[in-house]
Amino acid sequence: MNLKELINKNRSNRRFDESHHIDIKTLKKLVDLARLSASGANRQPLKYLLFNTPENCERIFPSLAWAGYLKDWPGPATGERPSGYIIILGDKSVTEVFGVDHGIAAQSIMLGAVEAGLGGCMIASIKHKDLRDELKIPAKFEILLILALGKPIEKVVIDEIKNGDVKYWRDSEKNHHVPKRNLDEVIISFQTDN
Amino acid sequence: MNLKELINKNRSNRRFDESHHIDIKTLKKLVDLARLSASGANRQPLKYLLFNTPENCERIFPSLAWAGYLKDWPGPATGERPSGYIIILGDKSVTEVFGVDHGIAAQSIMLGAVEAGLGGCMIASIKHKDLRDELKIPAKFEILLILALGKPIEKVVIDEIKNGDVKYWRDSEKNHHVPKRNLDEVIISFQTDN
Repeated sequence: MNLKELINKNRSNRRFDESHHIDIKTLKKLVDLARLSASGANRQPLKYLLFNTPENCERIFPSLAWAGYLKDWPGPATGERPSGYIIILGDKSVTEVFGVDHGIAAQSIMLGAVEAGLGGCMIASIKHKDLRDELKIPAKFEILLILALGKPIEKVVIDEIKNGDVKYWRDSEKNHHVPKRNLDEVIISFQTDN
Repeated sequence: MNLKELINKNRSNRRFDESHHIDIKTLKKLVDLARLSASGANRQPLKYLLFNTPENCERIFPSLAWAGYLKDWPGPATGERPSGYIIILGDKSVTEVFGVDHGIAAQSIMLGAVEAGLGGCMIASIKHKDLRDELKIPAKFEILLILALGKPIEKVVIDEIKNGDVKYWRDSEKNHHVPKRNLDEVIISFQTDN
């Protein structure tokens, strides 16, 4: 796949074949992609926690909020939950300023996941205290982002945006629809800029 | 190139063949990669300004700070400057919270640039007021990140980190060296997490 194909395929997935085991080597390879990506002032303050067993994944799941726009959906049911997680932490002993390092890292990881036949979702809506208590995460680490990973079982469709409504939705066949702004809307110019 | 090759090749470049013209279509294709990338709550608040002529690129350059660790280097000399820029703005009429959307978008764009035979650098160290005045950027847009693009003419080498020193440096042949933390350092676990 070239990059355009990878990016097209890299939709936020929230329903998975939970029986699909993700090898720890695969998770490490994904982190390696992040490790080699850009970091503000090359500080590299990010650290990664990896989870790939049912027992450990069960410890993460309750701390996540799923799909804010799907009010009637509490998140993936048993059997359709992620079978792996990468938690991105910011190491405050390196810097207190993480900028967008975790966005850069997360994009590298998610594209790598797609290339490896997986898919997933970046989750920033996290019950921080619950997760910190559950995993005994020391205070020097900030919880920045959780990447939920698995073998996707849902179809995600990109729609053209209508009336500026960005809310994703599900159709009667459980296909997930994501309205995206078109290129003409996002590329702008001011009278004076060229 | 597969993703690992792309990411390996995607080093921060700061010296370019300034005579290399970047087609506006190429810049638009890069923004399209960002457009199709993940956005927090799918809000898609990012807007993009594109620059690809010498006259317009000259207007951006003075607002950029280059390579903080290279104290004796004021930035690329005439003839070695970027021949294109993508400025990422946050549209505050959409949301005041941009999260790491611009990190995700920037990574998609930089990987696309490498695939297209270009290279560049994400720059967050910006003289905001100067740039806003020069381009007459309305107050409703926050200046988030500038992607400097061009045809790289420098060799960038990844080194293993020594004594935790993250500062990049240049050798006598002007090769740029970037120390990266190794995988064992960035993947961590706590006694209790698995």
